[in-house]
Amino acid sequence: MAMFDLSLDELRDYRPQVSEPEDFDDFWSASIEEARAAGSAAGVEVTRIDNKLAVIDTYDVTFPGFGGTPVKAWLHLPVGATGPLPTVVQYHGYSGGRGFPHSFTQWAQAGWAHWVMDTRGQGWSSGGNSETPDLAPEAGINHVPGFMTSGLEDPKHYYYRRVYLDAVRLLDAVRGHATTDPSKIIVTGGSQGGGITIAAAGLAPAAGIELLGAAPDVPFLCHFQRALQITGRNPYGEITNYLAGWRDRVDVAYRTLSYFDGVNLGRRARAATLFSVGLMDPVCPPSTVYAAYNFYGGDADVTKSINVYSHNEHEGGGIYQTAAQLDWFGELFRAP
Amino acid sequence: MAMFDLSLDELRDYRPQVSEPEDFDDFWSASIEEARAAGSAAGVEVTRIDNKLAVIDTYDVTFPGFGGTPVKAWLHLPVGATGPLPTVVQYHGYSGGRGFPHSFTQWAQAGWAHWVMDTRGQGWSSGGNSETPDLAPEAGINHVPGFMTSGLEDPKHYYYRRVYLDAVRLLDAVRGHATTDPSKIIVTGGSQGGGITIAAAGLAPAAGIELLGAAPDVPFLCHFQRALQITGRNPYGEITNYLAGWRDRVDVAYRTLSYFDGVNLGRRARAATLFSVGLMDPVCPPSTVYAAYNFYGGDADVTKSINVYSHNEHEGGGIYQTAAQLDWFGELFRAP
Amino acid sequence: MAMFDLSLDELRDYRPQVSEPEDFDDFWSASIEEARAAGSAAGVEVTRIDNKLAVIDTYDVTFPGFGGTPVKAWLHLPVGATGPLPTVVQYHGYSGGRGFPHSFTQWAQAGWAHWVMDTRGQGWSSGGNSETPDLAPEAGINHVPGFMTSGLEDPKHYYYRRVYLDAVRLLDAVRGHATTDPSKIIVTGGSQGGGITIAAAGLAPAAGIELLGAAPDVPFLCHFQRALQITGRNPYGEITNYLAGWRDRVDVAYRTLSYFDGVNLGRRARAATLFSVGLMDPVCPPSTVYAAYNFYGGDADVTKSINVYSHNEHEGGGIYQTAAQLDWFGELFRAP
Amino acid sequence: MAMFDLSLDELRDYRPQVSEPEDFDDFWSASIEEARAAGSAAGVEVTRIDNKLAVIDTYDVTFPGFGGTPVKAWLHLPVGATGPLPTVVQYHGYSGGRGFPHSFTQWAQAGWAHWVMDTRGQGWSSGGNSETPDLAPEAGINHVPGFMTSGLEDPKHYYYRRVYLDAVRLLDAVRGHATTDPSKIIVTGGSQGGGITIAAAGLAPAAGIELLGAAPDVPFLCHFQRALQITGRNPYGEITNYLAGWRDRVDVAYRTLSYFDGVNLGRRARAATLFSVGLMDPVCPPSTVYAAYNFYGGDADVTKSINVYSHNEHEGGGIYQTAAQLDWFGELFRAP
Amino acid sequence: MAMFDLSLDELRDYRPQVSEPEDFDDFWSASIEEARAAGSAAGVEVTRIDNKLAVIDTYDVTFPGFGGTPVKAWLHLPVGATGPLPTVVQYHGYSGGRGFPHSFTQWAQAGWAHWVMDTRGQGWSSGGNSETPDLAPEAGINHVPGFMTSGLEDPKHYYYRRVYLDAVRLLDAVRGHATTDPSKIIVTGGSQGGGITIAAAGLAPAAGIELLGAAPDVPFLCHFQRALQITGRNPYGEITNYLAGWRDRVDVAYRTLSYFDGVNLGRRARAATLFSVGLMDPVCPPSTVYAAYNFYGGDADVTKSINVYSHNEHEGGGIYQTAAQLDWFGELFRAP
Amino acid sequence: MAMFDLSLDELRDYRPQVSEPEDFDDFWSASIEEARAAGSAAGVEVTRIDNKLAVIDTYDVTFPGFGGTPVKAWLHLPVGATGPLPTVVQYHGYSGGRGFPHSFTQWAQAGWAHWVMDTRGQGWSSGGNSETPDLAPEAGINHVPGFMTSGLEDPKHYYYRRVYLDAVRLLDAVRGHATTDPSKIIVTGGSQGGGITIAAAGLAPAAGIELLGAAPDVPFLCHFQRALQITGRNPYGEITNYLAGWRDRVDVAYRTLSYFDGVNLGRRARAATLFSVGLMDPVCPPSTVYAAYNFYGGDADVTKSINVYSHNEHEGGGIYQTAAQLDWFGELFRAP
Repeated sequence: MAMFDLSLDELRDYRPQVSEPEDFDDFWSASIEEARAAGSAAGVEVTRIDNKLAVIDTYDVTFPGFGGTPVKAWLHLPVGATGPLPTVVQYHGYSGGRGFPHSFTQWAQAGWAHWVMDTRGQGWSSGGNSETPDLAPEAGINHVPGFMTSGLEDPKHYYYRRVYLDAVRLLDAVRGHATTDPSKIIVTGGSQGGGITIAAAGLAPAAGIELLGAAPDVPFLCHFQRALQITGRNPYGEITNYLAGWRDRVDVAYRTLSYFDGVNLGRRARAATLFSVGLMDPVCPPSTVYAAYNFYGGDADVTKSINVYSHNEHEGGGIYQTAAQLDWFGELFRAP
Repeated sequence: MAMFDLSLDELRDYRPQVSEPEDFDDFWSASIEEARAAGSAAGVEVTRIDNKLAVIDTYDVTFPGFGGTPVKAWLHLPVGATGPLPTVVQYHGYSGGRGFPHSFTQWAQAGWAHWVMDTRGQGWSSGGNSETPDLAPEAGINHVPGFMTSGLEDPKHYYYRRVYLDAVRLLDAVRGHATTDPSKIIVTGGSQGGGITIAAAGLAPAAGIELLGAAPDVPFLCHFQRALQITGRNPYGEITNYLAGWRDRVDVAYRTLSYFDGVNLGRRARAATLFSVGLMDPVCPPSTVYAAYNFYGGDADVTKSINVYSHNEHEGGGIYQTAAQLDWFGELFRAP
Repeated sequence: MAMFDLSLDELRDYRPQVSEPEDFDDFWSASIEEARAAGSAAGVEVTRIDNKLAVIDTYDVTFPGFGGTPVKAWLHLPVGATGPLPTVVQYHGYSGGRGFPHSFTQWAQAGWAHWVMDTRGQGWSSGGNSETPDLAPEAGINHVPGFMTSGLEDPKHYYYRRVYLDAVRLLDAVRGHATTDPSKIIVTGGSQGGGITIAAAGLAPAAGIELLGAAPDVPFLCHFQRALQITGRNPYGEITNYLAGWRDRVDVAYRTLSYFDGVNLGRRARAATLFSVGLMDPVCPPSTVYAAYNFYGGDADVTKSINVYSHNEHEGGGIYQTAAQLDWFGELFRAP
Repeated sequence: MAMFDLSLDELRDYRPQVSEPEDFDDFWSASIEEARAAGSAAGVEVTRIDNKLAVIDTYDVTFPGFGGTPVKAWLHLPVGATGPLPTVVQYHGYSGGRGFPHSFTQWAQAGWAHWVMDTRGQGWSSGGNSETPDLAPEAGINHVPGFMTSGLEDPKHYYYRRVYLDAVRLLDAVRGHATTDPSKIIVTGGSQGGGITIAAAGLAPAAGIELLGAAPDVPFLCHFQRALQITGRNPYGEITNYLAGWRDRVDVAYRTLSYFDGVNLGRRARAATLFSVGLMDPVCPPSTVYAAYNFYGGDADVTKSINVYSHNEHEGGGIYQTAAQLDWFGELFRAP
Repeated sequence: MAMFDLSLDELRDYRPQVSEPEDFDDFWSASIEEARAAGSAAGVEVTRIDNKLAVIDTYDVTFPGFGGTPVKAWLHLPVGATGPLPTVVQYHGYSGGRGFPHSFTQWAQAGWAHWVMDTRGQGWSSGGNSETPDLAPEAGINHVPGFMTSGLEDPKHYYYRRVYLDAVRLLDAVRGHATTDPSKIIVTGGSQGGGITIAAAGLAPAAGIELLGAAPDVPFLCHFQRALQITGRNPYGEITNYLAGWRDRVDVAYRTLSYFDGVNLGRRARAATLFSVGLMDPVCPPSTVYAAYNFYGGDADVTKSINVYSHNEHEGGGIYQTAAQLDWFGELFRAP
Repeated sequence: MAMFDLSLDELRDYRPQVSEPEDFDDFWSASIEEARAAGSAAGVEVTRIDNKLAVIDTYDVTFPGFGGTPVKAWLHLPVGATGPLPTVVQYHGYSGGRGFPHSFTQWAQAGWAHWVMDTRGQGWSSGGNSETPDLAPEAGINHVPGFMTSGLEDPKHYYYRRVYLDAVRLLDAVRGHATTDPSKIIVTGGSQGGGITIAAAGLAPAAGIELLGAAPDVPFLCHFQRALQITGRNPYGEITNYLAGWRDRVDVAYRTLSYFDGVNLGRRARAATLFSVGLMDPVCPPSTVYAAYNFYGGDADVTKSINVYSHNEHEGGGIYQTAAQLDWFGELFRAP
C-alpha cells in the first residue's frame, strides 16, 4: 500500500464543505427524546456472570436502546471494585460486537470501569454466546452485511440512527450506575467504533451528558461523499454498490447520510479528544478522518490532538495507540 | 478462468449425498397453505401502463405474496393480444428485480404472455421506478446485500422461504388470469432466477400447479455445502463470511439451507426441464448445478436436458441459451 | 471502485489540447469517396428471416462496407410495418456484433425501424450464426482480440477506418431504404458503439448525411492519449501493450489515432446529442468522455446534454440510460 | 476463500511420509546441551515494571537463550500473587514479539502466571519499547522479513534452531521461578507460536521437562514440503522464493527443514494437546496442521483433540479458541 | 504460487489420450511440399551488418517462409569464423522476435553458428529496427495480440501452420549454408519457442531433415485441451476467451488445434531431446509439458531427458537451463 | 498499467526538497577510508576459468570489499585481449548477482573489458555456483529477502553502506588491473544496479576516482520518502512494512536513508550520464528517478541525458536501452 489521498500538509488544512441539513439539531433532539421516552434507566439489568477470569468482574448488561430494544453490553470491573470509578465506554468496529466476556477488558485491567456495547444486528465477527438483535421494525431479522444501506432513504429509518441512540442510551445507563464516577467518562472505539464515539461526543451536549474525553481511532462514518469518491472498499463500498444500482437515489442518500456524518456531529462535541489516523488507510481514508478532526469541537475551546501513523493502513496505530490512550485516559482521569 | 471443479465425465455421474430434513414436505405444504391463506387471488391487481413500447402491452401487476405482502410484477403481452396464451414466468438473478417495463420482454416478443416477478427486497441492480419492499417482520427495511444470511437460523424465517412462496403465489395469479392458457406455463430464470425456477417447479406438485416446463440457467441455490467448499465468491460467499464469524452456527445454518436446496426441491419437480451450466462458473460451480440436475425429477419419468457451455463462467450460454429456450419453449407450447 | 479521474467540476470545464492532423478533413473526405466508389447502394440485400419472434419482423441485411466488403446488419421492424418510419441505427461494443436476430430489438419494440450493424472481424461475444469477416487485405482472417493495434502505423490501414466507413455506408443504405424516414435518423451505441456513433455523427456532414440525433453511451475511442495515461484496462490497454514493446512507434501511433479520435470527429458533428458517462469508469475514463462531449459540435449551435452516473463504472446508466433514450428519441422523432 | 486442500474426512486419516534425518535426536540433544551450557538459570533477570495496569503485575524478564543471547519476556501475574501458580507460556506469530506490557495478558487475567516470549530478531508488528536482537553470528543485525531462509543450508545455523532452543531455555527459567508450580505448565501460541509450541512440547522429553499441556493454534512450521506445494503465501512463500532462485539447493533445504518440522517434533511430545485448524487456511494449510496433529505423541497414550473451524482462514477460531483454551487449561490445572 | 497441477509422480506417468486427425501426416507432408514449392533455397539472402559487437559477426538473413513470405533471421558467428560449424537454431517466445542484432548471441559466443528466427507478425516485445510481417492473406496487417485464434476454424489457415513451416524452411536454409555442418544441427527455444522446437523436430523426418538435438524449454502449444482446462492465463487464455464467445466452435477449434499439438508432433520426432519444466508454471502447466515429453519420439529409441524445476513458474530453469544446454549441446556436438 | 505519478512536464521540473545530513560528506569520506584500510588492492585475485564460451575469456575475481570481505566478480574480455581496454563495470538488480559466467557478457562482446560485481548477500535469482556471503557482523548468514531494512537504525550499519563501498572498492581493483584503460571506465546497471551506479558515480570524486560515464537504468534507491508514499511495491515496500510495524522509527529510518539517497549521491557525481525511466514504473516510480536525474551533477557542467519510455513499467527500455548504451558507451570511449 502507498499513500493515495492528500499529503499530510494538505490534511492539516483540509476543511471541506460538508452539507448539513437545516433541521440537524431538531432531528437529533427529537431522536434523543424519543429514545429516552421508549425506555427508562430503571430498565437496566446488570447481572454478574462467570467470565473465566480471576482479576476482572464482569456483568452482563441489558439496557433499553433506541425504541426500547434491549441492547447488550458488558461491564468489566477490577475484581472486587465497587466504585465510583473512572469509566471507559467502548464501541465496536463494523461486524463486531461485545463478543465473549473475556475478549475486551483492557480498560478494566487499567483499574477503571469498562463498558463494552454490543452493536445491534452485528457481532458476527466477534462471536460469543449472545447477540443483540435489532428489534426495530425497520431492521428485520439478523443478516450480514448490508447495514450501511439499511434505511438509507430516510434519516428516521437509517440504521445508524438506532445505533447512535443506543450509544447515547448506554451513557444514560452508565451515568446512573453506582460504579461510575459521572464526572469521569471517556468514550472510545476504532473504525465504526470511532464513528460512534464521535457521534456520542457530538450528541452528548444536546443530551445533557458531560463527557470527559472521546478517543476515536481511525474513525469510520465521516465525510461520506469524499469517502465514496476516494475508496471503493467496504463498508463504504456497500453504499457505492447501492447507488451504482439505484442511480436515482444519490441525492436522497447523501441527504440522509449528512445527518450521520462525523463531520457534522463532531462539530458539536465538547469533550477533549484524541484521534488517530493512518495515512495509507484505504478503509477510512485520511481525508475523511481529518475532515472530522479539523471540524471537531466547532469554534469551542476544545483540547484536541491526533496521532498520525504515516505508513499504516486501517490497522492504524494498533497497540501503539492503545498505549497512547492508556496514558491519555490516565492523565484525564487524574486531572482535578 | 479455467476449470476448477469436476470434469464433465464426473459431473454427469455426480449424485452426492445432500441431507434432507424429515419434515421437508410438511414444511413446504404448510408454507404453501399459510401463504395462500394470507392473500387471495382476488387481490391481484393488473393495470395497463405506458411502457414506451409500440408492440408490447405491459401491465403493472401487484399480487399477494408470502404473508400477503404486495409483490410487483410485469405482465407483457404482444400488443392487442387477449389470450389465452402460452405463458412464460421469469424470476430474476441476485440483486435484480423486474426493472423498467421496457427491460425484459423477450418472451412477449415471441408471442407469449410474459410475467416478470420482482424479487422482494432486491432490485437495485435493475433499477426502475418502483420496488417490492419485503414487508415481512423478519425483513426490515430495504438494505443491500445480505439476503443470503437473513433468517439463517430458522427455516421459517429464512429469506428464501418468502421468495419461493412469492414464486408459487405468482403462479396462482398467473393461472387465474384471462390471458393465460393454464396448460401451457413455463418457468424460467438465470442464476438466482434459476434457483427460484427449480423451487417453483419443485413446489408446484404440492401446490397442485401443473407446469409444462422449467428452464433454469446456471442456477444458484443448489447444493449449498459443496458450493461453500468450492467457491468463496458472492453471493454464496455471504454465507461463508457469516459462518466464519458465527462459528457455532454451522450446523443450524446448513439445516436451514437444506430446506431451500435446489437438489431437494428439484427432486420433487415433474415439469420437463432444460438446464444450462458453465463448466468454469465460479459463482454457481458446475458440480452444484449438476447435483440439482442429476436429481431433478427424482425417479419420475421427466424429460430432461442440459446445455453445457464448456469454456464459460457465470455468463453461461448467454444469448445462445436464449436461442435454445426460444426453440424449446416453442416446441413445448406447440406440442398437443 | 472509486473515482480516479477528474472531479465533476473539473470535467465540466475539461477542454484539453488534442492534436489534429492538418489533412484530417481531406483524409476523411477521400475515405468516404473511396468507400462509396467501392460499392453502390444497389448492392444492399435485405431478406426476411425467421427471428423466432411474433411482434418484430427481422431482415437479414448485407450492405457494401468499406472496400466493398459485404457487411451484415439486422433490420428490425414492428411486425407488419412498412414505413417510412423513424429509424435508429445501433453500433456495438468491442467484441460484440449483431448477434442473434432476437437479441437487440429495443428500438423496434418502440415502434421504430431499428438497424443493428455487425462490426467487421468482431462479434465473438455476441455469437449468432453468421459473422462479418473483415475482408480487407489488411485484416487477415478472423482472430481475437487485437483490433486496437491493427494497422496502427498508417491511418489508411488502421482498422477503425474500415469500421467508421462501414458505419457511414450503413447510413447510405438506411437512407435509401423504403422503411426509413430519412429526416428521422438517430445513431446510437455504447462503448465502442458510442465511439462509432460519434464518428458517424462527425463524418455525416462531410458525407452529406443529415442525422437527427446521436446518442453515444460511455463512448470509447476518445482522447486516446489521456486514456492510455489514466487507465491500463483493455481495450485501450492493447495499445499500451503494443507501445510498451514497439517503443519507437509512439509518435506514429498517436498520429494515426488522432484521425480516429472522438474529440476531433465529434467537433464536426451537427446532430443533437445525448451522451452518458460513468464517473468511476475505468474502461472509458470520464475525462476522455468529457473531452469528446465538451468539444462535440465545435462552435455550432448544437443541442447537447450528458447524463452523469456518479457511482458507476463502465456499466454507466444501463437500463436507466435506455429509459432516457426512449424518451429523448421519442421527443426528437415527434418534433415537427 | 474456499476449501483448496483435502476434505475433512481425508484430513482425519492423513498420515503422510515426512522424512526424518537419522541423527534427529542426537542433533536436538546436543543442541539442548549446548544451549544450556551457554547460559545458566542464574542469569535470569526479573524486574517489576509499570505496565499501566491495575490488576496485573508485570515483570520484565531477560533470560539466556540459545548461545547465551539475552532474550526478553514478560511475566504477568494477577496483582499481588506470589505463587506457586499454574503457568502458561506463550510464543508469538511470525513478525510479532512480546510487544507492550499491556498487550497480551489473557492468561494472567485468568489467575495464572503468564509468560510471553519475545521472538529474537522479530517483533516489528507488535512494537513496544524494546526488542530482542538475534545476537548469534549467523543472525546479523535487525532486518525484516527473511527469517524463513536464514541459515537454510545447515540445520546448525538455521534460524529456528535458535528460536526453538530459546523456547526450551525459557521453560528452564519458568520452572526455576518461585511463582511457578512446575507440575502445571502449559505452552501455547498461534501460527509461528503454534509451531514453537509443538517444538517445545517435542523437545521437552529430551530436555527433561514435564509439560502438562500444549495448545498450538493453526500452527505453522509443519510438513514444509506439502506446505510449499499447496500454498505460495508468506511466510512459507519466502522459502519458495528462495528455491525458485537457488534451484540447486532444494534437497539441502528440505533436509534442513526436516529437523524443524512439527511433524517430527510433535511425534516426540508427551503433553496433552489441543490443536486448532481452519479448513480454508491458505497460510497454514489444513493438511500441514493435520499431518502434525495425526502424528503428535507418536505411539504414546496422549490425550489429543483438535478444534476444527470449517469456514475460516488463518484467523482460525479466534476468540472462540481462546474460550476453548480457557476451559481446557482450567480443567488441566484443576486435575489432581 | 504453488503447485496446482499433477504431482511429479503423476506427471512421470501421464500419458493422456490426445486426439490425432487421421490425415495428420498427409496434412503436414502436403504443407511441407507446398511451402517448399513457394520459395527456393536460392532465395536466401545473407548480408553482413554492423551489430555493434566485436567478437560476433552477424548477418541479416531473409529466407522464404511459408507461402514464399520473406522471413527475417539473424545468423551470428564467432568473429571471423567460416565454418562449417555446429549450428543452433533458436525460435522465440510469444510476443518476441529476433530483436536487435546484439540481443541473443549465446550460442555464437559458445563458438557455434547461431540462427535466430523472427516470428512472423510478432516481435513487439523484442523490438528492433525490422520485423517480419505475416504476408499471408489470412494474416492481415500487424496487430497484437490475437495470434492464438487466427484461422482457428481451419488447420489450413491456422496461424501456426505458417510459423511451423517457417521453422522448417529456416532449417532448409540453414542446411544449405556454407557455415553449417549439416550433421550438427540443434533446434531450441523457450515457451512458444519450445513449441516450435517440438514442431520442427516432429516435422523434420517428414521433411527429410536430420536434427542432432531438440531442446524445448517450458514449451507452449502442447495438449491444448488440458491447457485450457487447467489455466486461464494468456496466451492459452486467448483461445478460452474466443470459445467463451463463439460457443458453437469448440469442436472445430480443438480439431484444428490437434494438428498443431506438440503431443502429436513430438511423437514423430527422432532427435535427441532435453526438455525443461516448471512444476508451478501457470502459463505452460507441467501436465501439458509432460504430455509432450512422455510421448516424444513415439516408440523409437530416442535419447530423452527433462530438467525439472520444482519451485518455478514459467521462468523455469532460467540461466540454470542455459548452463545445462551449453553442456548438453557441447556433448552432442563433440560426439563422433 | 497506466501512469500514476507526475506528468512528463512536471517530471522535467521536479526538484523536490530531499534532506541531506550535515555530515554527509564526512560520513562517506570516512567510509571510503575505512574500506580501503581494510583491504589492499594487492588482495585482488583474478583466475581464468572455463566459461563454456569460445569468444569471451572470463576471469573469476575476488576483491576486498567493505570490511575486507572477499567479494566476487567476473571479468569478461574479448578472447585473447590483453588491454588496456575501455572498461564497463556492471552492478545488479535486487535479488540478482553475478550469476553464471555465461550470463552477462554484453559489454565484453562489444570489445570492452566487462566487470560484473556480485551483490553481497544477494544473488539468489541469478544463481550460479558461487555467491558472495555478506561477512560483516551486521549481516548474518544468507537469507532472503529483507536487505532494505538491515541496519536501518544507523547509517554505519545499513546494508547499502557495505554495498556502495564494495562498488567503490571494485573500481579500485578495476583501475589497478592491467586490462583497464583507467581513463575509460563507465559504470552501469539497472534498478538496484542503477542505484549503485549513481552511488559509485557520486562517491567517485571523494574517492579520487575518475569515471568517464555512468548509465543508471530505471534506478532504485532514489528519493526514498517519495517512493514510499507513491508505491507499496517491493523492494521499497519492505521499508513500508517495517515502518508500519516499528511505528516510532520513522524519523531514524529516513535519516539513515538520506545518506544513501541517489538524489544526494548523484548531486556529487561528475561523470557524464545517461539515465532511463519508465513513466508507468510502479517499482521505481518516475518521480524518484527524475528527482535523482534533475539533481545529478549538482551545479557542475555535466553532460546529461535521459531516455524516456512512456508506456513502460519497470522493464523500462529493455534492449532498446541496451542499444542506446552500446552507442553512447562507444561514443564516449572513442572521444579523444
